Amino acid sequence: MKNIGILGSTGSVGTQTLEVIKNNKEKFNIVFLSAHSNKDLLLKQAREFKPKYICVSNKEIKIESIDKIDGVKVLYGKNGITELCKNDNCDIILNAIVGYSGLEPTLQIINSGIDLALSNKESIVQAGHLVMNLASEKKVNIFPVDSEHSALWQCLIGEDKRNIKKLILTASGGPFRKTPKSDFAKITKEEALNHPNWKMGDKITIDSATMMNKGFELIEAFWLFNIGIEKLQIVIHPQSIVHSMVEFCDGAIKAQLSKPDMRLPIQFALSYPERYNLPGLDFSISDFSKLTFEPIDIDKFKCVKLAFKAIDEGGSYPTVLNVANDLLVDLFLKDYIEFNMIADYIEEAMNSHQIVKNPNLKQIKSITNSTKLFIKEKIKI
Amino acid sequence: MKNIGILGSTGSVGTQTLEVIKNNKEKFNIVFLSAHSNKDLLLKQAREFKPKYICVSNKEIKIESIDKIDGVKVLYGKNGITELCKNDNCDIILNAIVGYSGLEPTLQIINSGIDLALSNKESIVQAGHLVMNLASEKKVNIFPVDSEHSALWQCLIGEDKRNIKKLILTASGGPFRKTPKSDFAKITKEEALNHPNWKMGDKITIDSATMMNKGFELIEAFWLFNIGIEKLQIVIHPQSIVHSMVEFCDGAIKAQLSKPDMRLPIQFALSYPERYNLPGLDFSISDFSKLTFEPIDIDKFKCVKLAFKAIDEGGSYPTVLNVANDLLVDLFLKDYIEFNMIADYIEEAMNSHQIVKNPNLKQIKSITNSTKLFIKEKIKI
Repeated sequence: MKNIGILGSTGSVGTQTLEVIKNNKEKFNIVFLSAHSNKDLLLKQAREFKPKYICVSNKEIKIESIDKIDGVKVLYGKNGITELCKNDNCDIILNAIVGYSGLEPTLQIINSGIDLALSNKESIVQAGHLVMNLASEKKVNIFPVDSEHSALWQCLIGEDKRNIKKLILTASGGPFRKTPKSDFAKITKEEALNHPNWKMGDKITIDSATMMNKGFELIEAFWLFNIGIEKLQIVIHPQSIVHSMVEFCDGAIKAQLSKPDMRLPIQFALSYPERYNLPGLDFSISDFSKLTFEPIDIDKFKCVKLAFKAIDEGGSYPTVLNVANDLLVDLFLKDYIEFNMIADYIEEAMNSHQIVKNPNLKQIKSITNSTKLFIKEKIKI
Repeated sequence: MKNIGILGSTGSVGTQTLEVIKNNKEKFNIVFLSAHSNKDLLLKQAREFKPKYICVSNKEIKIESIDKIDGVKVLYGKNGITELCKNDNCDIILNAIVGYSGLEPTLQIINSGIDLALSNKESIVQAGHLVMNLASEKKVNIFPVDSEHSALWQCLIGEDKRNIKKLILTASGGPFRKTPKSDFAKITKEEALNHPNWKMGDKITIDSATMMNKGFELIEAFWLFNIGIEKLQIVIHPQSIVHSMVEFCDGAIKAQLSKPDMRLPIQFALSYPERYNLPGLDFSISDFSKLTFEPIDIDKFKCVKLAFKAIDEGGSYPTVLNVANDLLVDLFLKDYIEFNMIADYIEEAMNSHQIVKNPNLKQIKSITNSTKLFIKEKIKI
């Protein structure tokens, strides 16, 4: 029986995690659940999974006494999250918080010596050096939850990392793979939210449309697998069946494939080193009938180019990339800016940034604030 | 430094093995080389690789005194092969003998407690139970050399075999994937020898054209991975880039890919558990641009159906399948029979066979002889 804590249980990854756990009731026990503001779903989950704790991180929301559940303690806000991250009754904590506010919980979980299933990729994008150094110091495992890094991880099982020639991240190319760059300004929110293969949260769906998601994954792979940028490649694979590939020094390439279904990487992060049954994902000749690969156009998908630049410049640049993107996606979703402006304003923010080498958490917070301010001033909101 | 012995060094796999060894001179040392009758090439190889022994298994061929090489001892015939199979200066012996005469050397190598790189798939097809039981008793590793089983092996590294849902063998479909069954009688030797993706020896190229090769691989997978027939699947993949796949209980599928090049599985069998550099096999978007999968038509490729039947019936049936095929392919190459008769006569031989359960080597030899006789009488040669 594994004891699991979930930060962000009401989001897309959180709800799918609970589905996985429901299908493996004899293998998992839920210690806590947290949500930012979706109180109703959180309470519904709490009634079903009977955690010891629930936490609402948005302080403006209160659980009324009428909603109280016997045996479930209610926590609030950042302090509540911090308390959960220290709960060493957990064998593993899933951090499925969306956006840059996932960083502190990531560091707190690692600091508590608890294994981390990491869905919040922004943690590593912003502060890969802090996260990986702390994990190494505390001997904590970080299990990737997204499909690409899970694929790389699975392909590397039993292999010697020194034999890696290349990590090849696949990318569906999103809904605008064939849209000319000149039409990017006209892209609507509805079009951008309509991902061809994956059902995900709004933020990550927009990141897939701009391909910033792939840029983040590039940075994440750089840190998680401790690999040089010259060994990282992105290839467009519109069917989202091959989730990523590892090429070894002898020319052997290992790929991990499946129908697109987040339950698989989520479950693997929780079941590792075992694999549990997961019905409904059988190999199907019709689903796999044609798998295609094509090069990525990083002039069109400028976010990917900016991510390469952020790795290359290093230091505080990935923080600027991430924070600017986080805010700009939100502004796009709220109709403040056009689709193409997401990349353009990130570029502006990066161009006007003065690098801080090996930034600490305080510096990252300060850069987070100054980057937000920079964007807000630019857009005049 | 690994000490290697090679049986069948002048064939397609043998020569490619020497190419691999030549590229890794500091890692391998050749103890012996053997050939059936290609004396000239064997001598050329001996001059280059300086083995302790060479052996010509065809007794009619003699190495003249003028050809003698200093420090190289010459052996002849079956006794010579037997002596080589006992040479425990070898860390690993590659058995690349073609056809059913590879069986006894396989058993002798295992009996000597020497690890076996197995290219002669007929050994396991004919006598999987004997080979695997002996290997288990003698604690000898059998490393598959063909691309499909090497792919399965690579995909299983670090994984728990109990989690296998399916082993999916890929098959190019050979040159007659799109040829209607009704045209099979008209297929010429030249057409059958023209494989679209792989450069191999004549026997195996014809086996690829009839798809008996895939049938053998099915039987080989059955024994090598100790897996139920219901967990074995063949899928047509004309590009020969995905060399095979393993599907696990959680729906994750691992595939091993590369451009078709036998040097990779050969080298991996010799380098395992390490991987050595092998230049020229880089991931290439253009080579991988379109990978397709389609179902196999086992009514058209009757040899595959017969292989499934041979696994299902078990006992001595795979021996009949293998021996009949071996002789019939030879007869097809010598223009005695038409292409479609290969499968038809194998079927006749199997239909008239009385099963021997768990046949021993003597019984296998006797069935080998009676099957040959049966075929020769049928064809009246």
